[in-house]
Amino acid sequence: MKISKIEAIPFAIPYKKPLRFASGEVRVAAHILVRVHSEDGFVGEAEAPPRPFTYGETQDSIKSMVEKVFAPELVGLSCLNREQIHAVMNRTVGNPTAKSAVDMAVWDVIGKSLQLPVTTLLGGYADRMRVSHMLGFASPQSMVVEAERMRDVYGITTFKVKVGRKPFMLDVEVCRALRAALGSEVELYIDGNRGWTPSESLRALNAMNDLDLTLAEELCPADDVLGRKWLTARSPLPVVADESATTPGEVTRELLSGASNVISIKTARTGFTSSRRVLHLCEGLGTEVVMGNQIDGQIGTMCSAVFGSAYKATTSRAGELSNFLDMSDDLLADPLEISDGTLAVRNVAGLGIEVDPAKLAKYRQDS
Amino acid sequence: MKISKIEAIPFAIPYKKPLRFASGEVRVAAHILVRVHSEDGFVGEAEAPPRPFTYGETQDSIKSMVEKVFAPELVGLSCLNREQIHAVMNRTVGNPTAKSAVDMAVWDVIGKSLQLPVTTLLGGYADRMRVSHMLGFASPQSMVVEAERMRDVYGITTFKVKVGRKPFMLDVEVCRALRAALGSEVELYIDGNRGWTPSESLRALNAMNDLDLTLAEELCPADDVLGRKWLTARSPLPVVADESATTPGEVTRELLSGASNVISIKTARTGFTSSRRVLHLCEGLGTEVVMGNQIDGQIGTMCSAVFGSAYKATTSRAGELSNFLDMSDDLLADPLEISDGTLAVRNVAGLGIEVDPAKLAKYRQDS
Repeated sequence: MKISKIEAIPFAIPYKKPLRFASGEVRVAAHILVRVHSEDGFVGEAEAPPRPFTYGETQDSIKSMVEKVFAPELVGLSCLNREQIHAVMNRTVGNPTAKSAVDMAVWDVIGKSLQLPVTTLLGGYADRMRVSHMLGFASPQSMVVEAERMRDVYGITTFKVKVGRKPFMLDVEVCRALRAALGSEVELYIDGNRGWTPSESLRALNAMNDLDLTLAEELCPADDVLGRKWLTARSPLPVVADESATTPGEVTRELLSGASNVISIKTARTGFTSSRRVLHLCEGLGTEVVMGNQIDGQIGTMCSAVFGSAYKATTSRAGELSNFLDMSDDLLADPLEISDGTLAVRNVAGLGIEVDPAKLAKYRQDS
Repeated sequence: MKISKIEAIPFAIPYKKPLRFASGEVRVAAHILVRVHSEDGFVGEAEAPPRPFTYGETQDSIKSMVEKVFAPELVGLSCLNREQIHAVMNRTVGNPTAKSAVDMAVWDVIGKSLQLPVTTLLGGYADRMRVSHMLGFASPQSMVVEAERMRDVYGITTFKVKVGRKPFMLDVEVCRALRAALGSEVELYIDGNRGWTPSESLRALNAMNDLDLTLAEELCPADDVLGRKWLTARSPLPVVADESATTPGEVTRELLSGASNVISIKTARTGFTSSRRVLHLCEGLGTEVVMGNQIDGQIGTMCSAVFGSAYKATTSRAGELSNFLDMSDDLLADPLEISDGTLAVRNVAGLGIEVDPAKLAKYRQDS
């Protein structure tokens, strides 16, 4: 299982409908496909989504990091020696999606080589995850229509509502309309992507206090150090740290300082190896987790499901696994399907993703 | 002063002598020259040093960020509207040296346009800074020889000693040899670049307790959250946060959590605009600062001196301004000179740096 070559292939697939949220919008899935080749002929694959406004990465930076900084040091190491692989990658600061795509492609090689599903290698708790759907900014009416369609077509009953607009009553009206239309059975929670100040956040939470929301994510920046603690101390909802808690050290700081009390785990930024570290840290600290979405394509979504399905703690909440539905196409030979509100992992060796060569040829940007 | 064009030019100049330290070594100054052009014909210049092991940037990522992400949004803005320029750049996370080079080049345009030195525009406290020299890993004898040469040739009497090797007695012996050779008049402080564990760090500090050191920088990782606090609570020396405190939010977290109690300011990563925010935050919190070095070339060194000379608090300690002496050449038409242990700022419009076109042609990597 020695690594013989690592490729970083840029590709771009348009969205049918752009996703809009407080820190930006996404119209094209311009990602990097990372391919790890082993000397014994296995090929592991995963994708890295560049998110400059969340992690500071671009397609160029990911390609440069994987091919020029990581690959020369990783070629020759065995995929099984993941601690060595991470010791190499962790010399470099940041670049979380570049590191994570390499990590997950390495796990894909391990699974294929051992003839076992990666989700089984990781923990093997369940064969599927419940799905939470993210609702981007739109009018209350059209957000209700989208939620109803997701419920009726895919059986999804958990919704994460993007908030953080000004004035905040725009978002309060959306949440109120969703609760009125969908009834008390669906789960609703909110994600501000740092769009509000701490005091706006608390006023908005109070204005939504009768709507039975379950979580409030990144309403204000974690860098508003004292303001964020003030908010979390007063919030009627658990405060989820997402982009402010991307490493075990950051998780510890956010939790112990009182800046947050739930952690979002995203395989796009911590792969499998570091996601497990974050999960085990959170379990040890007595903190709930939620499997988040980095506006992943189908490859990234399957990686989230593979990790999330593997553990009891990560299956206890619905995972954010449906955003690929808004893309116009994908790279997989056998596309993902959501049914009965769940996404199943696949009982095949590796991650259960197979890239269609014709689709890759169509969407790759480097040829 | 509207921005008309921004260039990011990769260049590489070899070091005469590589600098070795706990988190890596540098053999070639492979930096990016950022040039901001204004519609009225001014050109501002600054340099960005890629430090993947400190900030996660590469030459490729800096060039991509400046030319593809920042420039399209910045062209058309006035250099005077720095808060707008930073609002654009701060949408992107990380990438500190890319942002800082743009910021300092913008200030260069402002200075040239207003016919004033940037150091005067910033604060105008002093016309020079005392210089501290960094001593990289070598044998005690050769580190003593280098320190004596720096003292005898340049009048430098403040030395930052790179430590963090294992076993730590290697570094203790160096510090002991330096104190014995240089006497009680020189200032010595240490920088571990996260090379030790918290407990090793305290043992090393105790072993050096009779050497009258003044500061201890980043001995262990700030991500060792509890261990770092434990160390800082027990350290006989003030603990300097450098790479763990690169934004105002990080500075606040490090100081209020007890992880550090002195802050290193580096214009390479916070430019002038954010360095001023960090400085004012530290002054307000009653915290000492030191002007650090990002293994800068002459352009970056002059930027440090321009900022450091401008304020009382930053001139109260020697700034780390001498590493360019180890480079084989530089881009400046009129090279920097250190004399009497000080580096003077220049009483000319802008930053006081003028790139020699012949030298740039010789060292640029994109032509």
